[in-house]
Order: sequence, then structure tokens, then C-alpha cells
Amino acid sequence: MSLAITPEMVRAAAERIKPLARRTPVIAPDASAQNTGMRVFLKCENLQRGGAFKIRGASNLILSLPASDLERGVVAFSSGNHAQATAIAARYVGARATIVMPEDAPRSKMEPTRALGATIVTYDRLRDDREAIAARILGETGGTLVPPYDHPMIMAGQGTAALELLDEIPDLDALIVCIGGGGLISGCSVIAKSIRPGLRIFGVEPELANDTWQSFRKGERISIPPPETIADGLRSPSPGKLTFPVIRSFVEDVLLVTEEEIREAMRFLLTSAKLVVEPSGAVAFAAVLCGKLPPGVNRAGVLLSGGNVDLEFLRKL
Amino acid sequence: MSLAITPEMVRAAAERIKPLARRTPVIAPDASAQNTGMRVFLKCENLQRGGAFKIRGASNLILSLPASDLERGVVAFSSGNHAQATAIAARYVGARATIVMPEDAPRSKMEPTRALGATIVTYDRLRDDREAIAARILGETGGTLVPPYDHPMIMAGQGTAALELLDEIPDLDALIVCIGGGGLISGCSVIAKSIRPGLRIFGVEPELANDTWQSFRKGERISIPPPETIADGLRSPSPGKLTFPVIRSFVEDVLLVTEEEIREAMRFLLTSAKLVVEPSGAVAFAAVLCGKLPPGVNRAGVLLSGGNVDLEFLRKL
Repeated sequence: MSLAITPEMVRAAAERIKPLARRTPVIAPDASAQNTGMRVFLKCENLQRGGAFKIRGASNLILSLPASDLERGVVAFSSGNHAQATAIAARYVGARATIVMPEDAPRSKMEPTRALGATIVTYDRLRDDREAIAARILGETGGTLVPPYDHPMIMAGQGTAALELLDEIPDLDALIVCIGGGGLISGCSVIAKSIRPGLRIFGVEPELANDTWQSFRKGERISIPPPETIADGLRSPSPGKLTFPVIRSFVEDVLLVTEEEIREAMRFLLTSAKLVVEPSGAVAFAAVLCGKLPPGVNRAGVLLSGGNVDLEFLRKL
Repeated sequence: MSLAITPEMVRAAAERIKPLARRTPVIAPDASAQNTGMRVFLKCENLQRGGAFKIRGASNLILSLPASDLERGVVAFSSGNHAQATAIAARYVGARATIVMPEDAPRSKMEPTRALGATIVTYDRLRDDREAIAARILGETGGTLVPPYDHPMIMAGQGTAALELLDEIPDLDALIVCIGGGGLISGCSVIAKSIRPGLRIFGVEPELANDTWQSFRKGERISIPPPETIADGLRSPSPGKLTFPVIRSFVEDVLLVTEEEIREAMRFLLTSAKLVVEPSGAVAFAAVLCGKLPPGVNRAGVLLSGGNVDLEFLRKL
């Protein structure tokens, strides 16, 4: 089966999203070498517009829509970062955005979305079907769905993060990326393997949200009940139809981290790297910090996927 | 009277410190425009090696010393960031470092300095004379003093931060820099005014440590009792002999911020910019955020001077 995206689609995305997405810095923290035995390069998507990598995919899709579609608005369902990204891109092109969001989404994610002029429709994460709610709105408005991960334009957009990272640090020997629905890792894998075929790619999930870890081992997509990890951006119950074949093709292994390891990574990033990273954003780095990688990795590129976390959460850390 | 440094000395420093100092990223936070009415560009010295701009000056001086001096070691007195910077640069050239440090310095500053192999001599900030202690050690060892600000090589090194900022964002109309002893703002002013003579330069101090504000208004250096501001990096009691004439020549005004405004700036940087900044590091941005700048500034470059802050302090924020 052919994969949903090509490296060329990621390169095209990099051009398309320039007006909206920032080229984020890559930071090699002082203490990384001594603590982990390897050089670590942090791709800081927490410093991205909207506080997460999500603007890359959302703007890639929305900027490619014809005016006739934009007139009918866009709809997204998201725990937060994708919502904010969709709202930013929609505002940029002058389209209405309706966001279907769990009612317990962190305030740090809900409030900026509302402030961007989006209409927010909330649902109960344990009871309601967010896709059904989005489908109803789409039926009423004739608008366009901006899915959180399982769409070629979204996947290609997210891959631009790895394109920038390898442009800046070409001689990485591994790339470490968190997995929710798999949009980020699939886009990053396709472009990274085309640039550097020997690069080793590792996905990381919270133990409490191990749907892709299970799927990867079983060789087919499985679903789990709504997971309760603190990494609220990685609570999707299964990998995507389009993202999973890419993960199977390019990812060497899926690694797991505990909730406490995620917190430890957040603390390290706060104190040693001076970076605010949300729980989901720290998951990939947690695998590095806690020694989950196999031997032989000396120069690791790590995607810090986002930084939208409530101050109250940081306080409890 | 001629000034202690020239733009050429800053350019020479930029070459000299390359092995030790990082080119730090410049970040334009999403929310800056809507909150302040201006575009703000944050020069992230909190992401610098050692967590502050201080490595620029310390490495510029230490890398210029002959081997015969390095053999006898280096000595610094510092509340923390300059200590860590001196220890990093000394270790790089294989010189012994002795640091004279207040006994109440934040752990986040003291521990990394010790871990770098420096010998730490503590003193009572309200009672002892740190310069006298350093002088005694220098008499015993014949070592070289690495002063925190009042030295041409230190001032020139610190100026490299502004050189990088203007290289990346050439069309700034103002530069906002915190003032402790004045090393950072004097180095930055000399290079910035040579590149862009029309640039407006503003210094910022905590109200509780207003020695340069008073000196600036009086036209001569005055001393204040040891200040108690949370901005522990800015507690010097007077501007330097060498830095003050530079400040008088190039700085349009010295602005003051309250302790609560410093905390507010730290919170904003944490939540909106995803950056951990120490109290001193947030002082310049506090002046921007709290409307202390005169009218007419549309594109402001702001030095975030450092990020070394205890987690306990962040928790109380």
C-alpha cells in the first residue's frame, strides 16, 4: 500500500505555511550530555505560534482551501492545541472556525482559542462522540473539517518541523517524537527518512495511552478506552488510518514513559533548559532522559511538541 | 572623556567567544502586540550556556589571558550567574576558579557553579565586603580577577548579545536592557549605536535597586545600601566607573519597575512565551509589559538576561 504523503508534500507545505508558522529554534541544553550520555537537540515547538506544532498542519490544510470552501467556515475537534492552531489559521484567511472541544480541556488551551474568535462547542470526553458532533456541524454549515491528524495535508504540514530540524542539525542519528494520533511522527518520518535514510526514528507514548505501542506490536490498529494520562494532547484512543502505515514503515520502535517520567522531564526542561513544556510536549524527551532508547544513539533530535500548560499544573510539579 | 570600549572591541569579542557562548534565539511572542501595542523581540539569554548572558563577558576576558596568568587561576565575586560563567570559561581553558558568593545566593545559581569544579567562598551580603575578600584571595594566589561588569573585556563581551540581536532584527527602534552594574547595557549600547545611531536605548532597574536611576538623574555615580529586590542579579549598589559614562552617553532614560511588575512579567513570559526567566531577566520586559516606555516605540528589542531561578520561587509566583 502506498503511503498517504510524500517528501515533496512536506517540502510544499514548508513553503505554504511560511506566513503563519515560525521557524522554531533548536536548543542543545548544557546538561543534556552529562545526564543522558548523548547530545540532545531540542526542536522547540513550544515556542511555535499558538504554543505547539499544530499550526504547521492546520495552516497547510487551510491555506490550500479554495475561497468557496473558506466561505462556509472550518470545523475542528481537538483537546486544545489543534483547536488554537485552526483558529489562528482560520482568522488569517478570514474564515469562521467552529471548534469541538472536551469540556475539561485545560484553560490554557481553551481561552486563547476563544480569544481568537472561534466558536467553541464543548462535549463530555468520556460519553460523547466528538466526531459525530463535528459531523453534525459540518452537515449544517457545509464547512470543511480540519482533522487533528488523519489527513495528508495535516501530516505533511507537521513534517515541516523535522525538515527544519535536519536543515539545522544534519548529522542526527535518531529522531524522537511523541505519538497521539500520529500526525507529527508520520510527517516527520517521511521527510526525515528521505533526507537521511539511516536515521533511526522512535515514537514515544505515555504508558496510560499506549494505543500505538499495542498497535505497533500487533501489526494492526487497535483502540483503547479514553486514556487518562496527564499528557492531554496524546489521549487519542488509536493511531490514524493514514498515519499508522507510515509509522509501521519508518519507526524503529514505540517506547513508553510513565506519568512520573513525564513530570521529571518537565522539571528538567524547566530548570535546566529554561523551557516551559506541556506534559505531551515532554513525553519524547522523557524517553531520552529516562534511558528508554536502545544503545548506539549519540546525537538525538527531540521534538518538544508544545508548551500550553496551566500555571496551576506547573505549581503542582 | 573617552569611553572604555569601542564597537570594534565588541566585534572582536564576538569572534573570541564563539567556542563558549551560544548564539541565542530571538523570539517574538504571539501575544506581545496585542498587550503592549508594539512588536517585541526577546533576545533569549536565559537559553544561553550557563543560563545567562554572563558567559559572553567572562569568556571574552578569560580567553584573552596568557597561559602564565591562567596557571595562577581566576577569581570572581558574584551573586551567581557571573560565577557560573566564570567557572565554565575557567574549566574550558583548564584554569582554577575561586568564586566569592553571598551565602544566600539561590541554590539554582550556587550548585551548578560548584558542579563545574569551582571553589566557592561565601560571605554575608549585608556585612562583609566581597571585594576585600576577593582581593585577599588574589594576594595569596596571584590570580586574575574576573570582575562582574566594570572591565572593558567584560563590557565588550556582553555587547555581543546586542550585536546578534541587530544582526537578526535590524530594524528595531528601541533596545531595552536591565541594569545591575551596567556591563550588559554598556556593551550593548556601544555596538548598537554604532550599527544604528537612531536606535533608542532604555535601561531598566527595580525600584528597590535604583542606584543607576538616581545616578543618571544626578549626573554622577551614587551608592545605595545593599538592595533587597527579588532581582538578585541587579543588587549592585552603584553603577560602575567604566559603565556609567557609557550609560550617560547612549541611554535615553533609566526606567523603574516594581517587584510586582517583575513577577507579572515572569508570569507572562512563562505562560505566553513558554520561557523560564529569572527575576533579573524579566526586569527589562516588565518595563515594556507595564507601559513604562515613552510613546513612539513600535519595534522593541528586549534582553532577557537570564533564566536561573529556583523551582520554589516559580511555585510561589
